[in-house]
Amino acid sequence: MTTQNHDPKIPENYLALLESTALAHVATIGLGGEPQNDPVWFDWDGEHVKFSQTKARQKFRNLNRNPRIAFSIVDPENPYRYLEVRGEVARVEEDPDLNFISAMAKKYIGVNRYPYHQPGDERVVIFVKPRHTSQMGA
Amino acid sequence: MTTQNHDPKIPENYLALLESTALAHVATIGLGGEPQNDPVWFDWDGEHVKFSQTKARQKFRNLNRNPRIAFSIVDPENPYRYLEVRGEVARVEEDPDLNFISAMAKKYIGVNRYPYHQPGDERVVIFVKPRHTSQMGA
Repeated sequence: MTTQNHDPKIPENYLALLESTALAHVATIGLGGEPQNDPVWFDWDGEHVKFSQTKARQKFRNLNRNPRIAFSIVDPENPYRYLEVRGEVARVEEDPDLNFISAMAKKYIGVNRYPYHQPGDERVVIFVKPRHTSQMGA
Repeated sequence: MTTQNHDPKIPENYLALLESTALAHVATIGLGGEPQNDPVWFDWDGEHVKFSQTKARQKFRNLNRNPRIAFSIVDPENPYRYLEVRGEVARVEEDPDLNFISAMAKKYIGVNRYPYHQPGDERVVIFVKPRHTSQMGA
Protein backbone atom coordinates (compact mmCIF):
# COMPACT_ATOMS: atom_id res chain seq x y z
CA MET A 1 0.00 0.00 0.00
CA THR A 2 1.38 3.40 -0.94
CA THR A 3 1.27 6.20 1.62
CA GLN A 4 0.96 9.79 0.39
CA ASN A 5 2.54 12.52 2.51
CA HIS A 6 1.42 16.03 1.68
CA ASP A 7 4.50 17.18 3.47
CA PRO A 8 7.90 17.96 2.00
CA LYS A 9 9.74 16.22 4.84
CA ILE A 10 11.46 12.95 3.91
CA PRO A 11 10.23 10.22 6.29
CA GLU A 12 13.06 9.46 8.72
CA ASN A 13 13.12 5.76 7.97
CA TYR A 14 13.83 6.59 4.28
CA LEU A 15 16.87 8.79 4.87
CA ALA A 16 19.21 5.79 4.61
CA LEU A 17 17.75 5.00 1.18
CA LEU A 18 18.72 8.51 0.04
CA GLU A 19 22.29 7.74 1.07
CA SER A 20 22.37 4.33 -0.62
CA THR A 21 23.55 3.64 -4.15
CA ALA A 22 19.96 3.29 -5.38
CA LEU A 23 19.35 5.02 -8.68
CA ALA A 24 16.69 7.73 -8.85
CA HIS A 25 14.35 7.59 -11.82
CA VAL A 26 13.63 11.19 -12.79
CA ALA A 27 10.35 12.28 -14.37
CA THR A 28 10.24 15.64 -16.10
CA ILE A 29 7.87 17.23 -18.62
CA GLY A 30 8.97 17.50 -22.24
CA LEU A 31 8.42 20.27 -24.78
CA GLY A 32 5.17 18.71 -25.94
CA GLY A 33 3.82 18.28 -22.40
CA GLU A 34 4.73 14.58 -22.33
CA PRO A 35 6.32 12.91 -19.32
CA GLN A 36 9.90 11.72 -19.72
CA ASN A 37 11.67 9.35 -17.36
CA ASP A 38 15.19 8.07 -16.88
CA PRO A 39 17.63 7.05 -14.17
CA VAL A 40 20.33 9.21 -12.57
CA TRP A 41 22.91 9.10 -9.82
CA PHE A 42 21.75 11.38 -7.01
CA ASP A 43 22.74 12.88 -3.69
CA TRP A 44 20.80 14.19 -0.69
CA ASP A 45 22.19 17.11 1.32
CA GLY A 46 19.52 17.12 4.04
CA GLU A 47 17.45 19.67 2.15
CA HIS A 48 17.71 18.97 -1.58
CA VAL A 49 17.86 15.99 -3.90
CA LYS A 50 20.80 16.82 -6.17
CA PHE A 51 21.90 15.35 -9.47
CA SER A 52 24.27 16.18 -12.30
CA GLN A 53 23.34 17.09 -15.86
CA THR A 54 25.05 18.48 -18.91
CA LYS A 55 23.43 21.59 -20.34
CA ALA A 56 22.82 19.76 -23.61
CA ARG A 57 20.62 17.10 -21.99
CA GLN A 58 16.89 17.09 -22.63
CA LYS A 59 16.14 16.84 -18.90
CA PHE A 60 18.06 20.07 -18.29
CA ARG A 61 16.17 21.84 -21.06
CA ASN A 62 12.87 20.44 -19.74
CA LEU A 63 13.60 21.75 -16.24
CA ASN A 64 14.45 25.20 -17.58
CA ARG A 65 10.96 25.37 -19.08
CA ASN A 66 9.15 23.55 -16.28
CA PRO A 67 10.90 23.04 -12.93
CA ARG A 68 8.55 20.33 -11.67
CA ILE A 69 10.10 16.91 -11.19
CA ALA A 70 9.44 13.56 -9.52
CA PHE A 71 11.98 10.97 -8.37
CA SER A 72 11.17 7.28 -7.91
CA ILE A 73 13.74 5.44 -5.78
CA VAL A 74 13.53 1.70 -5.07
CA ASP A 75 15.49 0.15 -2.21
CA PRO A 76 18.22 -2.01 -3.81
CA GLU A 77 17.83 -4.44 -0.89
CA ASN A 78 14.04 -4.71 -1.13
CA PRO A 79 12.09 -4.18 -4.37
CA TYR A 80 8.84 -3.69 -2.41
CA ARG A 81 10.16 -0.64 -0.64
CA TYR A 82 10.34 2.67 -2.44
CA LEU A 83 10.20 6.40 -2.01
CA GLU A 84 8.78 8.95 -4.41
CA VAL A 85 9.87 12.56 -4.01
CA ARG A 86 8.03 15.26 -5.94
CA GLY A 87 9.33 18.79 -6.00
CA GLU A 88 10.73 21.66 -7.99
CA VAL A 89 14.14 22.84 -9.03
CA ALA A 90 15.32 25.31 -6.38
CA ARG A 91 18.53 26.28 -8.16
CA VAL A 92 21.16 25.15 -10.64
CA GLU A 93 24.89 25.49 -9.98
CA GLU A 94 27.75 25.17 -12.43
CA ASP A 95 30.17 22.27 -11.87
CA PRO A 96 33.17 23.42 -13.97
CA ASP A 97 35.72 21.38 -12.01
CA LEU A 98 33.48 18.29 -12.03
CA ASN A 99 33.51 18.20 -8.25
CA PHE A 100 29.92 17.13 -7.87
CA ILE A 101 29.83 14.56 -10.66
CA SER A 102 33.11 13.15 -9.33
CA ALA A 103 31.57 12.84 -5.84
CA MET A 104 28.73 10.90 -7.49
CA ALA A 105 31.25 8.65 -9.28
CA LYS A 106 32.86 8.05 -5.88
CA LYS A 107 29.49 7.16 -4.34
CA TYR A 108 28.31 4.89 -7.14
CA ILE A 109 31.42 3.34 -8.66
CA GLY A 110 34.13 4.03 -6.08
CA VAL A 111 36.43 6.17 -8.24
CA ASN A 112 37.74 9.64 -7.36
CA ARG A 113 37.18 11.27 -10.72
CA TYR A 114 34.19 10.97 -13.03
CA PRO A 115 35.53 8.86 -15.90
CA TYR A 116 32.99 9.66 -18.64
CA HIS A 117 33.50 13.40 -19.06
CA GLN A 118 33.46 14.49 -22.71
CA PRO A 119 35.25 17.60 -23.96
CA GLY A 120 32.69 20.38 -24.28
CA ASP A 121 30.26 18.93 -21.74
CA GLU A 122 29.06 21.71 -19.47
CA ARG A 123 28.14 20.08 -16.18
CA VAL A 124 25.67 21.57 -13.72
CA VAL A 125 24.16 20.44 -10.41
CA ILE A 126 20.37 20.51 -10.15
CA PHE A 127 19.04 21.15 -6.62
CA VAL A 128 15.47 19.92 -6.09
CA LYS A 129 13.39 21.00 -3.10
CA PRO A 130 10.94 18.26 -2.04
CA ARG A 131 7.26 19.26 -1.86
CA HIS A 132 5.55 15.90 -1.43
CA THR A 133 6.65 12.34 -0.78
CA SER A 134 4.97 8.97 -1.02
CA GLN A 135 6.31 5.61 -0.04
CA MET A 136 5.63 1.91 0.13
CA GLY A 137 7.20 -0.37 2.74
CA ALA A 138 8.34 0.23 6.31
CA MET B 1 25.44 8.35 -23.89
CA THR B 2 21.70 8.22 -24.33
CA THR B 3 20.30 7.49 -27.77
CA GLN B 4 16.90 8.96 -28.71
CA ASN B 5 14.78 6.98 -31.16
CA HIS B 6 11.92 8.89 -32.69
CA ASP B 7 10.45 5.56 -33.52
CA PRO B 8 7.94 3.51 -31.54
CA LYS B 9 9.77 0.26 -32.21
CA ILE B 10 11.55 -1.27 -29.22
CA PRO B 11 15.21 -1.84 -30.17
CA GLU B 12 15.70 -5.59 -30.65
CA ASN B 13 18.54 -5.86 -28.18
CA TYR B 14 16.23 -4.48 -25.47
CA LEU B 15 13.43 -7.00 -25.90
CA ALA B 16 15.00 -9.35 -23.33
CA LEU B 17 14.96 -6.51 -20.79
CA LEU B 18 11.21 -6.21 -21.30
CA GLU B 19 10.90 -9.88 -20.41
CA SER B 20 13.14 -9.65 -17.35
CA THR B 21 11.99 -8.99 -13.80
CA ALA B 22 13.19 -5.39 -14.00
CA LEU B 23 10.72 -2.95 -12.49
CA ALA B 24 9.35 -0.17 -14.69
CA HIS B 25 9.27 3.29 -13.15
CA VAL B 26 6.12 4.96 -14.45
CA ALA B 27 5.84 8.71 -14.95
CA THR B 28 2.37 10.22 -15.33
CA ILE B 29 0.99 13.75 -15.01
CA GLY B 30 -1.00 14.67 -11.91
CA LEU B 31 -4.05 16.86 -11.50
CA GLY B 32 -1.94 19.97 -10.99
CA GLY B 33 0.24 19.25 -14.05
CA GLU B 34 3.06 17.87 -11.93
CA PRO B 35 5.01 14.73 -12.87
CA GLN B 36 4.52 11.69 -10.65
CA ASN B 37 6.74 8.62 -10.67
CA ASP B 38 6.68 5.18 -9.10
CA PRO B 39 7.63 1.58 -9.82
CA VAL B 40 5.37 -1.16 -11.18
CA TRP B 41 5.51 -4.75 -12.34
CA PHE B 42 5.03 -4.81 -16.10
CA ASP B 43 4.60 -7.07 -19.09
CA TRP B 44 5.34 -6.71 -22.80
CA ASP B 45 3.06 -8.43 -25.33
CA GLY B 46 5.05 -7.52 -28.46
CA GLU B 47 2.98 -4.40 -29.00
CA HIS B 48 2.09 -2.87 -25.63
CA VAL B 49 3.72 -2.31 -22.27
CA LYS B 50 1.08 -3.54 -19.81
CA PHE B 51 0.70 -3.06 -16.09
CA SER B 52 -1.95 -3.53 -13.44
CA GLN B 53 -3.67 -0.81 -11.44
CA THR B 54 -6.61 -0.52 -9.12
CA LYS B 55 -9.17 2.07 -10.15
CA ALA B 56 -8.58 3.93 -6.88
CA ARG B 57 -4.90 4.57 -7.62
CA GLN B 58 -3.73 8.05 -8.48
CA LYS B 59 -1.86 6.80 -11.56
CA PHE B 60 -5.10 5.38 -12.95
CA ARG B 61 -6.92 8.66 -12.36
CA ASN B 62 -4.01 10.57 -13.91
CA LEU B 63 -4.12 8.42 -17.03
CA ASN B 64 -7.85 8.91 -17.40
CA ARG B 65 -7.25 12.65 -17.59
CA ASN B 66 -3.99 12.50 -19.56
CA PRO B 67 -2.98 9.25 -21.28
CA ARG B 68 0.67 10.19 -21.77
CA ILE B 69 3.17 8.09 -19.87
CA ALA B 70 6.87 7.27 -19.73
CA PHE B 71 8.55 4.13 -18.40
CA SER B 72 12.16 4.00 -17.22
CA ILE B 73 13.54 0.45 -17.02
CA VAL B 74 17.06 -0.32 -15.79
CA ASP B 75 18.71 -3.66 -16.54
CA PRO B 76 18.93 -5.53 -13.21
CA GLU B 77 22.21 -7.05 -14.42
CA ASN B 78 23.77 -3.75 -15.49
CA PRO B 79 22.87 -0.40 -13.93
CA TYR B 80 24.40 1.48 -16.89
CA ARG B 81 21.95 -0.04 -19.32
CA TYR B 82 18.40 1.23 -19.51
CA LEU B 83 15.45 1.73 -21.76
CA GLU B 84 12.94 4.55 -21.68
CA VAL B 85 9.60 3.99 -23.40
CA ARG B 86 7.27 6.94 -23.91
CA GLY B 87 3.76 6.44 -25.15
CA GLU B 88 0.06 6.71 -24.52
CA VAL B 89 -2.61 4.51 -23.04
CA ALA B 90 -4.17 2.58 -25.92
CA ARG B 91 -6.85 0.90 -23.83
CA VAL B 92 -7.80 -0.29 -20.37
CA GLU B 93 -9.24 -3.75 -19.69
CA GLU B 94 -10.94 -4.98 -16.56
CA ASP B 95 -9.19 -7.77 -14.66
CA PRO B 96 -12.05 -9.10 -12.48
CA ASP B 97 -10.56 -12.57 -12.05
CA LEU B 98 -7.11 -11.15 -11.33
CA ASN B 99 -5.66 -13.10 -14.22
CA PHE B 100 -3.26 -10.41 -15.32
CA ILE B 101 -2.06 -9.35 -11.86
CA SER B 102 -1.61 -13.03 -10.99
CA ALA B 103 0.51 -13.53 -14.14
CA MET B 104 2.63 -10.59 -12.92
CA ALA B 105 2.93 -12.18 -9.46
CA LYS B 106 4.11 -15.35 -11.23
CA LYS B 107 6.68 -13.40 -13.23
CA TYR B 108 8.03 -11.37 -10.33
CA ILE B 109 7.62 -13.49 -7.24
CA GLY B 110 6.96 -16.99 -8.59
CA VAL B 111 3.47 -17.52 -7.13
CA ASN B 112 0.37 -18.50 -9.07
CA ARG B 113 -2.04 -16.08 -7.45
CA TYR B 114 -1.51 -12.43 -6.61
CA PRO B 115 -1.29 -12.48 -2.81
CA TYR B 116 -2.01 -8.82 -1.99
CA HIS B 117 -5.53 -8.42 -3.33
CA GLN B 118 -7.78 -6.40 -1.04
CA PRO B 119 -11.57 -6.80 -0.96
CA GLY B 120 -13.08 -4.02 -3.04
CA ASP B 121 -9.99 -3.45 -5.21
CA GLU B 122 -11.09 -3.13 -8.82
CA ARG B 123 -8.15 -4.25 -10.93
CA VAL B 124 -7.55 -3.14 -14.50
CA VAL B 125 -4.83 -3.71 -17.08
CA ILE B 126 -3.37 -0.59 -18.71
CA PHE B 127 -2.12 -1.13 -22.28
CA VAL B 128 0.46 1.43 -23.40
CA LYS B 129 1.44 1.89 -27.03
CA PRO B 130 5.07 3.01 -27.40
CA ARG B 131 5.67 6.22 -29.39
CA HIS B 132 9.32 6.91 -28.68
CA THR B 133 12.18 5.08 -27.01
CA SER B 134 15.58 6.09 -25.74
CA GLN B 135 18.31 3.93 -24.33
CA MET B 136 21.76 3.84 -22.87
CA GLY B 137 24.07 0.83 -23.19
CA ALA B 138 24.45 -1.83 -25.86
